[in-house]
Amino acid sequence: QPAFDLHEHSHTRLNILTGERVLVSPHRSKRPWQGKVEDLPKDERPVYDPKCYLCPGNERAGGVKNPDYKQTFVFTNDFAALQADTPVGEFNKNNLLQAKSESGICKVICFSPRHDLTLPLMDVATIRQVVDVWVEQYKELGSRPDIHYVQIFENKGEMMGASNPHPHGQIWAQSSVPVEVNKETRQQKQYYEANGKSLLSDYLAIELEEKSRIVVENEHFVALVPFWAVWPFETLLISRRHIGNITEMNDSEKNALANILKRLTTRYDNLFTISFPYSAGMHQTPTDGGLYPEWHWHMHFYPPLLRSATVKKFMVGYEMLGNPQRDITPESAADRLRGLSEGHYKL
Amino acid sequence: QPAFDLHEHSHTRLNILTGERVLVSPHRSKRPWQGKVEDLPKDERPVYDPKCYLCPGNERAGGVKNPDYKQTFVFTNDFAALQADTPVGEFNKNNLLQAKSESGICKVICFSPRHDLTLPLMDVATIRQVVDVWVEQYKELGSRPDIHYVQIFENKGEMMGASNPHPHGQIWAQSSVPVEVNKETRQQKQYYEANGKSLLSDYLAIELEEKSRIVVENEHFVALVPFWAVWPFETLLISRRHIGNITEMNDSEKNALANILKRLTTRYDNLFTISFPYSAGMHQTPTDGGLYPEWHWHMHFYPPLLRSATVKKFMVGYEMLGNPQRDITPESAADRLRGLSEGHYKL
Ligand SMILES: O=P(O)(O)O[C@H]1O[C@H](CO)[C@@H](O)[C@H](O)[C@H]1O
Ligand SMILES: O=P(O)(O)O[C@H]1O[C@H](CO)[C@@H](O)[C@H](O)[C@H]1O
Repeated sequence: QPAFDLHEHSHTRLNILTGERVLVSPHRSKRPWQGKVEDLPKDERPVYDPKCYLCPGNERAGGVKNPDYKQTFVFTNDFAALQADTPVGEFNKNNLLQAKSESGICKVICFSPRHDLTLPLMDVATIRQVVDVWVEQYKELGSRPDIHYVQIFENKGEMMGASNPHPHGQIWAQSSVPVEVNKETRQQKQYYEANGKSLLSDYLAIELEEKSRIVVENEHFVALVPFWAVWPFETLLISRRHIGNITEMNDSEKNALANILKRLTTRYDNLFTISFPYSAGMHQTPTDGGLYPEWHWHMHFYPPLLRSATVKKFMVGYEMLGNPQRDITPESAADRLRGLSEGHYKL
Repeated sequence: QPAFDLHEHSHTRLNILTGERVLVSPHRSKRPWQGKVEDLPKDERPVYDPKCYLCPGNERAGGVKNPDYKQTFVFTNDFAALQADTPVGEFNKNNLLQAKSESGICKVICFSPRHDLTLPLMDVATIRQVVDVWVEQYKELGSRPDIHYVQIFENKGEMMGASNPHPHGQIWAQSSVPVEVNKETRQQKQYYEANGKSLLSDYLAIELEEKSRIVVENEHFVALVPFWAVWPFETLLISRRHIGNITEMNDSEKNALANILKRLTTRYDNLFTISFPYSAGMHQTPTDGGLYPEWHWHMHFYPPLLRSATVKKFMVGYEMLGNPQRDITPESAADRLRGLSEGHYKL
């Protein structure tokens, strides 16, 4: 029998950030596809759309009129999943039915007044303005006593449930710390207590040595396909310096973040020459007043596409009931992303 | 301030089977939708499709020809994510990159030779044949020393990644126990050790008393929207008797399972008068030789639709990075499902 080979044989890999496993089936990419074919995202959008409720000067679904904004624009979500005035309460029946009130604030951040742009089409200086808004918002929301976690994220593209194509991200800030963040706290804390260094510093050192999963780097950040990636072209953006959250970034780091965001998302768009859909978001220190010396700022990119612009990876039956599963190896995904140009196909 | 009300205010609920939480935002169902609209599933399919690789007598993608089967038909997946002859091996770099070979067997079960049917359109006697195949397969695969878990599931509809519309389910049987099953073992074991009864027996007793989340029941099974449901119309099918796996069901229970599957899936189809997409699957005792007195057989149904036949719930940015989130309450979903007829809209 041949020796076990990560690039040939089915195996599980450990996600060191969550402690959970993913099933990798390298040989499976050859299977035929008679399933769902997605529509191509519309590639041409107007600079201004009179019907878009995020464009400057337009009226939103809630009835409020947007200002005639020129850069970024932040407002409270008109249909927020979390509300600040939620009454505090609990419900418990024999410990089998357990509920707890959850208050919070949901915001929308328009990245640009231009309806036709996306992060990879914006210039680095304009992306830097978005970074500054993230810093301010994390600071402002996180300093409230009723906010224990500030989740900054973006759903890009219809395929990822974006309810509007205008370039925008969201913030959901809430009174408890969510499940995925708690998993990462547990794993990072364990490592930090045992080794006196952050889990991601040591992990990053190995990746920089191995090189096979690196996609793009600059002075302050590295984007790579993590060893345990679930989504076909998933990436993890890590700060070289061990910092807990975005407010700790110095000026040069904030510029470098804007730089790497543009370069990474440009590669994504170039992969299938479409405006590449993904959900992305930062994980950083909770704002519940605790000390989190183990936390290392990072950003996850979860893109749904697998084979082409129109065939995505479905996380369904087996994945929902068993384990997440992927067909191509993280190494081959990194290899493809690394081979792409950083000049955007549309520019 | 008003008192905290589960049907008005945002809150989290505990999933007692996984120990994880879901965010519920009851007021959010009013938000407008300018996002993705799905295609309607094709409602008319031929009894036999010469191009379908699951129809009797046709050639499959792998080149093998299907027999002219008359009832159910089981074969090994031509593009299996798990293979029995995977060489055993491990990979470990400083505990930060960890991988382990995973062997297994993937099977496909055609529920019927008829291309145009689905579970709700089959009669109870024919569904009972499917139940019998599940029992046989669990027994056969589970008795192999190299198989430690047998995951039986169905992806129904293009929206749930089914690569072929012919009525079929799958089995992925593997050498380790997957993540989701381990979570449920931990939770059920803890409860069983503390209370001497299965977690789901006691949970079911509460639900039968409260009634608000029950969808359909018969002599041996109850289908309900669990208190912690994530997907809008998610249901959980529980056996009244505390049994660990499907091989323990007696003849009358197997008939009752066929009966409730037909009734539940008929209600699903009637909800939006379409062939309702979902991923569904059983959770039951691992087959690694351990004793699992705490395990209580059940089946999860995870349907993606939210508002209509064409608007689904997206588990994206916040959900991937934070917590799963839902807009309508489990109680209102149960109420709608309970109000539907059990006569199929097409029959
Ligand atoms: O096995 P199929 O139908 O080709 O594929 C479908 O089910 C599998 C198991 O849930 C998933 O891994 C695939 O992403 C999905 O498209
Ligand atoms: O907030 P939006 O863009 O209306 O909605 C989108 O993002 C939310 C946060 O990830 C999800 O809960 C919704 O399912 C999705 O459609």
